[in-house]
Amino acid sequence: MERTLISETISSVGKSVRLCGWVNSRRDMGKVIFVDLRDRTGIVQVVMVPAEIPAEQHELMKEIRSEFVLEIQGEVVARNAKSINPNIKTGTVEILAKSIAILNRAKTPPFELDKDTSGINEEVRLKYRYLDLRTERMQKNIRLRDAIITRFRDFLHARQFCEIETPYLTKGTPEGAREFIVPSRLHPGNFYVLPQSPQQFKQLLMVGGMEKYFQIARCFRDEDQRGDRQPEFTQLDMEMSFVEQEDVLQLVEEMMIDMVKATAPEKRIQQIPFPRLTYKEAMEKYNSDKPDLREDKNDPNLLAFCWVIDFPFFEQDGNGGWTFTHNPFSAPQPEYMEQLREKRDVGSILAAQYDIVLNGYEVGGGSIRNHRPEDLKTVFEIMGASEEEIQTQYGHMLEAFEYGAPPHGGIAPGVDRIVMILANEPNIREVIPIPKTGDARDLMMDAPSPLPAKALAEANIRLKA
Amino acid sequence: MERTLISETISSVGKSVRLCGWVNSRRDMGKVIFVDLRDRTGIVQVVMVPAEIPAEQHELMKEIRSEFVLEIQGEVVARNAKSINPNIKTGTVEILAKSIAILNRAKTPPFELDKDTSGINEEVRLKYRYLDLRTERMQKNIRLRDAIITRFRDFLHARQFCEIETPYLTKGTPEGAREFIVPSRLHPGNFYVLPQSPQQFKQLLMVGGMEKYFQIARCFRDEDQRGDRQPEFTQLDMEMSFVEQEDVLQLVEEMMIDMVKATAPEKRIQQIPFPRLTYKEAMEKYNSDKPDLREDKNDPNLLAFCWVIDFPFFEQDGNGGWTFTHNPFSAPQPEYMEQLREKRDVGSILAAQYDIVLNGYEVGGGSIRNHRPEDLKTVFEIMGASEEEIQTQYGHMLEAFEYGAPPHGGIAPGVDRIVMILANEPNIREVIPIPKTGDARDLMMDAPSPLPAKALAEANIRLKA
Repeated sequence: MERTLISETISSVGKSVRLCGWVNSRRDMGKVIFVDLRDRTGIVQVVMVPAEIPAEQHELMKEIRSEFVLEIQGEVVARNAKSINPNIKTGTVEILAKSIAILNRAKTPPFELDKDTSGINEEVRLKYRYLDLRTERMQKNIRLRDAIITRFRDFLHARQFCEIETPYLTKGTPEGAREFIVPSRLHPGNFYVLPQSPQQFKQLLMVGGMEKYFQIARCFRDEDQRGDRQPEFTQLDMEMSFVEQEDVLQLVEEMMIDMVKATAPEKRIQQIPFPRLTYKEAMEKYNSDKPDLREDKNDPNLLAFCWVIDFPFFEQDGNGGWTFTHNPFSAPQPEYMEQLREKRDVGSILAAQYDIVLNGYEVGGGSIRNHRPEDLKTVFEIMGASEEEIQTQYGHMLEAFEYGAPPHGGIAPGVDRIVMILANEPNIREVIPIPKTGDARDLMMDAPSPLPAKALAEANIRLKA
Repeated sequence: MERTLISETISSVGKSVRLCGWVNSRRDMGKVIFVDLRDRTGIVQVVMVPAEIPAEQHELMKEIRSEFVLEIQGEVVARNAKSINPNIKTGTVEILAKSIAILNRAKTPPFELDKDTSGINEEVRLKYRYLDLRTERMQKNIRLRDAIITRFRDFLHARQFCEIETPYLTKGTPEGAREFIVPSRLHPGNFYVLPQSPQQFKQLLMVGGMEKYFQIARCFRDEDQRGDRQPEFTQLDMEMSFVEQEDVLQLVEEMMIDMVKATAPEKRIQQIPFPRLTYKEAMEKYNSDKPDLREDKNDPNLLAFCWVIDFPFFEQDGNGGWTFTHNPFSAPQPEYMEQLREKRDVGSILAAQYDIVLNGYEVGGGSIRNHRPEDLKTVFEIMGASEEEIQTQYGHMLEAFEYGAPPHGGIAPGVDRIVMILANEPNIREVIPIPKTGDARDLMMDAPSPLPAKALAEANIRLKA
């Protein structure tokens, strides 16, 4: 017999069904055992009356405990009015069991799975992530995550973007966060680096004529974990050719509105079009470059998006020189291009950079890039790099740009934070299927862990003395 | 003015348009310059007549060379019958340029981009991957890859599968391929491992009640590269709860047929339903467990899928013991379960394992898993593992299974090989956006490469003496 999903039982009164799932709870009333059976679609009450069940299964019936995996054949029966359970979606029906099979047994879980686990010790929840994932809240979060990502993908594909996978074993970037390193076995003394973002790749794909790229990309940063950081996280990485800042802002704004409407219709976006603040305004008015513009901070369904634009390109590096504020590959705003070329009053140059902010979180940043190699080189010169440093660190990008780089720009919304906010969760660990602890450990898999000496020797490394 | 895509020019006769793209080729006829302009949608001929173009742009006109990035404003003109070019899709029109801007200049590429580059030295092509990607064949391959992956995703989402991201920084598995290792900075002497597949995670997600999982997953194997291998590759990783072998085979077969029809309608599938061969039949009849069943091996549009099933579970390990043939987490075929439990005549036990084969390539393998911890333990015992070894290597999986693991099974089709075959390419490097060489180097990024001593020290490692 085909399996019936629990959500389908409501519309199957009078029918014989086969259900599979977990025991959410059981009550032994002596003559009758009630089991709340759970699958991914919900919960339904199963009534086990010995007279209805083959004699050889009566012993099994008594064995059943929470989280046992059962296969139940039975009949869907309408409940009479006074026994309707308004707390579950299938509360108008119950299943009269005719046959029971225990597909697997279960030890008593270390915490209760039929309740919200937010309050349970997080280390325990992370060690038993495979149990926490069974709870209603976590199921909802993980499925919401997929829905949000899918909506982004559909939106971009409908606009002729191409999703392109870029390497995870690559080369380090001289600026930015600390990176994870991977020793090479075939090339002793050499290392790959896990990318902190596909920034260089996406720009090279623009040089490669792909024109409209995106990728749900894993990013890696070996930073000291603060609050809601993770050593690996996910961003919706995007890049477009032949666009200006306004094109990117319009597209991303439309994409966010579409995503919210489709995946979280209970949410209200406070202001459309999204308000735009210059960096200067944001700092003066809110003392923050990611202001929380919500009019009612207690409304869990209020979403206040805004754009922050017109960031200064350079800031003083503390040694009398200049460094970039966001990304050395950014272009200046078009009206500052001459000023950049002349290296004149660089502190006042504004970059074609933009952040998208949601409820006080930066949920994405990007820029129009400096696609002419001679202009990009000027940026490095302003930052005091020598010709040799420029060639060593950025030579491959400058060379690529010499072969006809198109004007291009992009952005990289952070998937984890967006899902976190839409799910009303306080941190990104609640919306990452298998997250790590604050100090970058995976308690379920027990990673990182020591390796046999042979593995290190093969990778041409040894431990620091 | 909005940008017009080159493919749209055919239906824009008489209109003013703004085109952006690269110079595919140019011919200077003295009084007139003809430029074939290329964007992601195709090529169109631009006619530059000085009388039609502002005087201050006449110098620019002469500068133009191959791969320059241009913005052209002009008028779409129908060609007269005898000048129609049947070799390009826009051959019925040309663009009479009214204004020209050079968006970027380009050096002469190291190989010609308006021709198929299959015959060019591959190291040169990989170093300048961003140029090779501009060619028609590579554009087609990369876009076909996205189309195939998208079709798989849509198919699975329509059947209520949930895409779930699993970690890339994880723990090693005791069996299988050699793995890349990542030293931990925060936990000296400890290492992460890059996963050779999400096998353990997907099973744990089944324990977690996700029921129907998939993921376009990057996999990492530090093996000596042979022909068609890459250190990182992509698989469509899938797992389902409450299914039997037949369910998986049916679903995957339907998915493959759907994908071929949607993304490569010119292809013909030789036989539907896909023929099924037992391992024994395949070896006896074809001396191969991935037989090429095509009736006409010269037909580039013929696809011969088949299933190979009924693999032996164990094989002799050469030391008088037994080892698994595919995957220790597999279940035996149901009729062999008692034989497994009794550890009787283990050489004759057949596994619930299956490979899908296409044109002589294994393009996916999977199995129904052994979801009862006591049965799984029996497998390890047959392979001669001590209680301590079992706990060290598989303890976390056995423990998870003790909390109510559902019956489950899955498969993992290899995306790179499938795209390679559908694109009629001879190796997977032609369908991976940024592949590595046979000895695992990225010639475009120059990875792997040496790192400063500081980076090694921070990761708590040093080079082997």
